[in-house]
Amino acid sequence: MPPEEFRRYGHQLIDWIADFLSSYDAHRVLPAINPGELRAQLPQAPPQTGEPMHDILADIDRLIMPAMTHWNHPEFFAYFVSSGSGPGILAEMLSATLNPNAMLWKSCPAATELEQVTLDWLRQMLGLPETFWGIMYDSASISIMHALAAAREQLNDLAMREHGMAGRKELPRLRVYASEHVHSSFDKAALILGLGQAGVRKIAVDEQFRLRPEALQHALNEDRAAGWRPMCVTATVGTTSITSIDPVPAIAEICKRENVWLHVDAAYGGSAALVPELRWVLEGCEHADSLVVNPHKWLFVPLDLSVLYTRKPEVLRRAFSLVAEYLRTAQDREVENFMDYGIPLGRRFRALKLWFVLRYFGWEGLAVRLREHVRLAQQLAGWVDAHPEFERMAPTPLSLVCFRAHPAHVQNEEELNRLNESLLEAVNNTREVFLSHTKLNGRFVLRCAIGGVRTEERHVRKAWEIVQKQLARLLALK
Amino acid sequence: MPPEEFRRYGHQLIDWIADFLSSYDAHRVLPAINPGELRAQLPQAPPQTGEPMHDILADIDRLIMPAMTHWNHPEFFAYFVSSGSGPGILAEMLSATLNPNAMLWKSCPAATELEQVTLDWLRQMLGLPETFWGIMYDSASISIMHALAAAREQLNDLAMREHGMAGRKELPRLRVYASEHVHSSFDKAALILGLGQAGVRKIAVDEQFRLRPEALQHALNEDRAAGWRPMCVTATVGTTSITSIDPVPAIAEICKRENVWLHVDAAYGGSAALVPELRWVLEGCEHADSLVVNPHKWLFVPLDLSVLYTRKPEVLRRAFSLVAEYLRTAQDREVENFMDYGIPLGRRFRALKLWFVLRYFGWEGLAVRLREHVRLAQQLAGWVDAHPEFERMAPTPLSLVCFRAHPAHVQNEEELNRLNESLLEAVNNTREVFLSHTKLNGRFVLRCAIGGVRTEERHVRKAWEIVQKQLARLLALK
Repeated sequence: MPPEEFRRYGHQLIDWIADFLSSYDAHRVLPAINPGELRAQLPQAPPQTGEPMHDILADIDRLIMPAMTHWNHPEFFAYFVSSGSGPGILAEMLSATLNPNAMLWKSCPAATELEQVTLDWLRQMLGLPETFWGIMYDSASISIMHALAAAREQLNDLAMREHGMAGRKELPRLRVYASEHVHSSFDKAALILGLGQAGVRKIAVDEQFRLRPEALQHALNEDRAAGWRPMCVTATVGTTSITSIDPVPAIAEICKRENVWLHVDAAYGGSAALVPELRWVLEGCEHADSLVVNPHKWLFVPLDLSVLYTRKPEVLRRAFSLVAEYLRTAQDREVENFMDYGIPLGRRFRALKLWFVLRYFGWEGLAVRLREHVRLAQQLAGWVDAHPEFERMAPTPLSLVCFRAHPAHVQNEEELNRLNESLLEAVNNTREVFLSHTKLNGRFVLRCAIGGVRTEERHVRKAWEIVQKQLARLLALK
Repeated sequence: MPPEEFRRYGHQLIDWIADFLSSYDAHRVLPAINPGELRAQLPQAPPQTGEPMHDILADIDRLIMPAMTHWNHPEFFAYFVSSGSGPGILAEMLSATLNPNAMLWKSCPAATELEQVTLDWLRQMLGLPETFWGIMYDSASISIMHALAAAREQLNDLAMREHGMAGRKELPRLRVYASEHVHSSFDKAALILGLGQAGVRKIAVDEQFRLRPEALQHALNEDRAAGWRPMCVTATVGTTSITSIDPVPAIAEICKRENVWLHVDAAYGGSAALVPELRWVLEGCEHADSLVVNPHKWLFVPLDLSVLYTRKPEVLRRAFSLVAEYLRTAQDREVENFMDYGIPLGRRFRALKLWFVLRYFGWEGLAVRLREHVRLAQQLAGWVDAHPEFERMAPTPLSLVCFRAHPAHVQNEEELNRLNESLLEAVNNTREVFLSHTKLNGRFVLRCAIGGVRTEERHVRKAWEIVQKQLARLLALK
């Protein structure tokens, strides 16, 4: 594409984006589309000859927008919100333009050194010790996979790197531990590492859905006695269902005593630690062997960017470093080549967007926004608590509110589940807000996750009004 | 960031990008920077308060550009070229703006269905059978890891998903096979899967660096007799060092007979198959169980985008699917949720850039460019062959030329290695072109990889002139 053509369409697209960013009120967060509808509108065969850029951009409004779930929409309250801010979008434009592969220092000194510096800034903001070394991956799932691989590599006496696991009759069975509410990526990491589902033991939680340390200790004792070798414990700071915060200090003590790798999944909740009065969420994490936090979740960086910190980068390196001749450089002894610390060799210039976002908002600007999200969630929790037909289903330590409708005349749990499932469907069918759900002790629970960079009080208020209105409608239908 | 502020800086950045894209001649491909120099210029502590976007953008020229290795530069000839085209950059702007997570159909119908459609287009362009189902990951390393995990899951009788591998006394040792020239990501995949280095057996190559099928057969026989269970064979179409193409038809026959998963690594070379007269590169691949091709390598899509095709998506799904309650949707039975087929849950809207690029260039437009790259490589190979002081070190089936200086008066191999290492250093120290190297049978070899969307004959000619000039200078110094 000739640069002048790029300039023309680039300006056109910037105007489209700026118009879009200023018109969320005119867009619904969820699309009105059925499975297969977009596919049916697209050609089955690839284009033989090139098409004008004008036509391609026109298809954004014609084909893509009607099929979009708008994650950046201020009324997106599902899952955990991933919202990309303006400076993040600008940085991604630049990253796609420069397009380096940050595998080696030599292959892009700027990407390597900016990754080191921004991750050290973030470490300071989260109050983590200087001994924590960081690396960027795409997703928390990939980060935790690397953490578990390091935990396995740390079992020096088993010589995993050399000999692997299958068919070695002298090896013990290996196990990893986490609360019942750990994210499914923990199980997936165990699967790919070859631990199997049997190699994952889930630990019971207390009434606030936090891992019970004494249950963990009991499981470790029981498993050791039965010949298992504990390999890793994962504590979660902000579980996906309810943002419960496992008691990391007590878990860390157990891990230290038992000599087991402690990983902390703070993918969502970790960001809160940059707010002075919320720093407590990472209490005890200075003892973790590794910790993951996702700036693409609650730090306004566009997808994807997950950060793994570890006190033991040399173990991670030992698990993965394999330098082919064609990747050797003259600087290998004096620099950090991030490809040595994991699976992906192709590494985007992700540091740029973290740099832009941290600088544009500043530490204080980010703290102001996160504090506001927590305030909005507390306010919504108060509204739920005060309403006779709703009840809160879990504590609200951060910015997620778990609740359900519970009208006085409905006492049967199955009926309540059906009612709340219908309620969620009715709410999302308005397409004006998007909430998601979970199940707690068999109960269907609505989740309202607040964390979008564009989300204000009026948006949360609107969500709450829609929920109430839809419940009234459902009850009237009966 | 208010939309009008985004508009202002967006336009400013578009002009910066368009100016940059039109001024490669004024930029050197390699930076003049020593390790740590960028770090030293950056603040050690994070910014407390927000900074004006104007200052942040100004730092691109001040701090980032002097530390950039320009992968998009027409004179970048190192590794394999990853070059991002204009339509790819525009698509990334949009992807960062819309910022959906393509984990579920519900979480972004547009991303899911566009991924299905564009991967089917690409499949048709590469001449792969309709039975090939595709999924997007970030890098070939992650793709091959998933392929090997599927190969392991296919060993039904071993119940890997349920019981894993460690400490199961009834399990056989597992092994994977590939040529000595397989990419290091194959070894890394085996490491994370828990096969260990012992679980990887490298097979000898012929004089053209292609896996020798009879050596593979011999290895399989020998290993089975010794109690190993073969799990996967990887054939490479376009090895990283020399772009040799393994004889897939013969390998496929062995894999079929031996009932072993066949994976094909065509991360770079696979794209060539869209050129009618180069379609032969994927001959036999219709029998593969899985195949990887990277549009971010030789298809002008910005990093990152790797595609895994497999005839057995249900095996991949069985290896990884774990659906947490909070991710269940009403459409689960009628749609494809790509998160079910792998580790990453956070999935960017990558289909957009493949869609833009395939449409903007069209099948024919892409074929014209790839054909020209191959022509340029053949021309350079001819220049090398015709020059008395240089020699080609490997066949040039595609667009990579492997060669070295070999003046008549230098016959000692060690001296030749030192000379060629100095030559590469001298060439790259001009910073005007960037070549990389490999070692073949102990010999230091220069690699000139041609594949940039902006690379023309004059750029290759310039590289060849610099190489000759630097050799003359080195020889004169002696």
